[in-house]
Amino acid sequence: MVRVDLSGAAAFFDPAGPDYAAAAKAHRDLVDGTGAGSEFTGWLNLPARIKDGELKSILAAAQKIRSRSKALVVIGIGGSYLGAKGAIELLRPVPSEDDPMILFAGNGLSPDALTDIIEKLGDRDFDVNVISKSGTTLEPAIAFRVFRKLLRDKYGAAAKKHIFATTDSAKGVLKSMADAEGWECFVVPDDVGGRYSVLSAVGLLPMAVAGIDVKAVVNRAIEELKALDLRSPENPAWQYAAARQHLYGRGRGIEILACYEPSFRFMAEWWKQLYGESEGKNGIGIYPASVELTADLHSMGQYIQDGPRTLIETVVSFDKPRHAFPLPFEMGDPDGLNYLAGKDLGDICATAAEAVKSAHISGGVPNIVISVPSRDEAGFAALVCFFEVACAISGYMSGVNPFDQPGVEAYKKNMFRLLGKPGT
Amino acid sequence: MVRVDLSGAAAFFDPAGPDYAAAAKAHRDLVDGTGAGSEFTGWLNLPARIKDGELKSILAAAQKIRSRSKALVVIGIGGSYLGAKGAIELLRPVPSEDDPMILFAGNGLSPDALTDIIEKLGDRDFDVNVISKSGTTLEPAIAFRVFRKLLRDKYGAAAKKHIFATTDSAKGVLKSMADAEGWECFVVPDDVGGRYSVLSAVGLLPMAVAGIDVKAVVNRAIEELKALDLRSPENPAWQYAAARQHLYGRGRGIEILACYEPSFRFMAEWWKQLYGESEGKNGIGIYPASVELTADLHSMGQYIQDGPRTLIETVVSFDKPRHAFPLPFEMGDPDGLNYLAGKDLGDICATAAEAVKSAHISGGVPNIVISVPSRDEAGFAALVCFFEVACAISGYMSGVNPFDQPGVEAYKKNMFRLLGKPGT
Repeated sequence: MVRVDLSGAAAFFDPAGPDYAAAAKAHRDLVDGTGAGSEFTGWLNLPARIKDGELKSILAAAQKIRSRSKALVVIGIGGSYLGAKGAIELLRPVPSEDDPMILFAGNGLSPDALTDIIEKLGDRDFDVNVISKSGTTLEPAIAFRVFRKLLRDKYGAAAKKHIFATTDSAKGVLKSMADAEGWECFVVPDDVGGRYSVLSAVGLLPMAVAGIDVKAVVNRAIEELKALDLRSPENPAWQYAAARQHLYGRGRGIEILACYEPSFRFMAEWWKQLYGESEGKNGIGIYPASVELTADLHSMGQYIQDGPRTLIETVVSFDKPRHAFPLPFEMGDPDGLNYLAGKDLGDICATAAEAVKSAHISGGVPNIVISVPSRDEAGFAALVCFFEVACAISGYMSGVNPFDQPGVEAYKKNMFRLLGKPGT
Repeated sequence: MVRVDLSGAAAFFDPAGPDYAAAAKAHRDLVDGTGAGSEFTGWLNLPARIKDGELKSILAAAQKIRSRSKALVVIGIGGSYLGAKGAIELLRPVPSEDDPMILFAGNGLSPDALTDIIEKLGDRDFDVNVISKSGTTLEPAIAFRVFRKLLRDKYGAAAKKHIFATTDSAKGVLKSMADAEGWECFVVPDDVGGRYSVLSAVGLLPMAVAGIDVKAVVNRAIEELKALDLRSPENPAWQYAAARQHLYGRGRGIEILACYEPSFRFMAEWWKQLYGESEGKNGIGIYPASVELTADLHSMGQYIQDGPRTLIETVVSFDKPRHAFPLPFEMGDPDGLNYLAGKDLGDICATAAEAVKSAHISGGVPNIVISVPSRDEAGFAALVCFFEVACAISGYMSGVNPFDQPGVEAYKKNMFRLLGKPGT
């Protein structure tokens, strides 16, 4: 399990402290299915189901793609791409020679961005993984039409063998198209919302194609979810959920997720969706933001230290870097850094993190540290399960349904009307 | 000039509206040098100075690097990399065959990130541009030591010809090293802070190496700064500054910078430093955040629509995309998109933006649109000048010194002490 350290937040708590009784109730509601939106809590046993289900097909499809193609175009938006993109950047920041290029399309409407993706793709052999529960979401639907045409132009009748559809198991436009054309299909489970779907085929197929050991991810996730069922204030998910709700009640309206690994950048985007979409409703919710450290100490650092005292800083910390990197000694010490020569950069980074933590606490920013053993498949799985469970508990504690997203419809209705979609 | 449209914010104004008299005074203080931190307002005439100064040397150095190297490692943190990185992603999202790979290092302390950069560099011929006013900032100093060693290992005595130092004109560790070693030097002007330095050699050299027409940038910036001297509420910088300060006074503590071009992502990071570091002090300041649209409508969209009504949404909009992209017609209309066939994706995107704007306003989010004619050198220059002038005015209106960053020192002091730096 990940470890949560609240010592840097304690000075900002009321004497009563975080409400673990409320966390316990929220956890019960989640597990017993007595909370709002309980029809979307299938992610609680998703890794176990997929292991006994389609994991083999996912691995086989990934192997097929890796062996014949130099690129995979992943078409999806929101929960249909953020998790996989976050995982791939975190775990495979530099692709190996054998890894197909992973291109994410259909997550916007910019003609320039789509043109750029097609240019990057070049004349590589490629496959497409289209990910959409319904098939009617505009952005991926448009991109998918474009790439279907590119596939037909390139492969003719064999194009259909290059399409993998991750969609509803039975209904919807995309499923109908897949059945009619004979595309290989994977399932977006009915009881799992988009932002909780990274450990389904939605996330696992692109991750596997990128060279991530998704079997290790799934195995570890099964263990983590078991461990996170702990009903006690020792549960890190209770700690995180209860602490942030407590701080929110004391005027802390913005949470900054920070990490000292630049490869974490897109995991923070995944986290923003998870928390922002789950909790931001009914006029309440902590605003989820992120910084990359130490880079952003030289940009947002000033605000964090001296701006309004409305922030919570949550640091995701990996216990061990992947690589040793001792700082070289240099004759003559022209830059005055020889006092660090021979020290490992990882240790210097850890020291900097300590210094930042104490500076920010002194400056009036409560600090939560989430420690993950390693930046690998196990660490990724642990982090995902932790954040998902904690988010559901936190959402219930705040009184919202953490599994719906009624506000997402407003612009869509406007848009389809303005575009003249038949029937609007 | 860029155009500012406040019509989507007007419903959220007091009857009195934005305080243009205060904007006028702030502008006067800025231009007359009577405001706080006036010793750092040299950016107001920086483009003109550089055009008559070192622009030729910058172009010559860039040409030399482009002709002999396959990569440029840019070493810098904060204002010493965000502007160039933002510009390159915005203007050269897909490098051409002739463009050297631009790698940004020294903006963090992660040993894994540094290892990744070195792996990406591979055995390419490369040059280094180290950017630091003093040479003592830890992150770039460490990376620079590492890359100096790599250069010596690769080029021996000729290594010195592969180093370009952008630093103080006369003093500091980096300048001393450069003089001793004979590296070619460029100047970080004394009267320009890091976050306002993108139109000096700090930003222009990496941009030129990446293939950006920096002469066009500089020429346009000269014109823009002249135009932005307009002393009237017609000035878009007044409009933006006064509107956001007015909204901040009415409980809007978070500003989300949004753009429908994914290539804008790092410009938003540049903007966050500019505004966060200029305004976040003395316990006040708008929190600068960003979203990428339409992608983040499917993640942060729920929060924006239905969360706490503390947001301002500012949309950067490019009038024309670079590429036409008509949606293909498809026989049988399997996905039901033929009602859009033949329409250009750029128009569909613009329609979506209209729909989003009205949905967010209805949901209680004031909307400001900043329109830029084109996503090219001229558009970039216009945007940079606009944001810089508006930031200074906005900072003065809020009563702070927009040119200092006292809070950035706190963690550095802790860090150097913990690291055992001699003399701490």
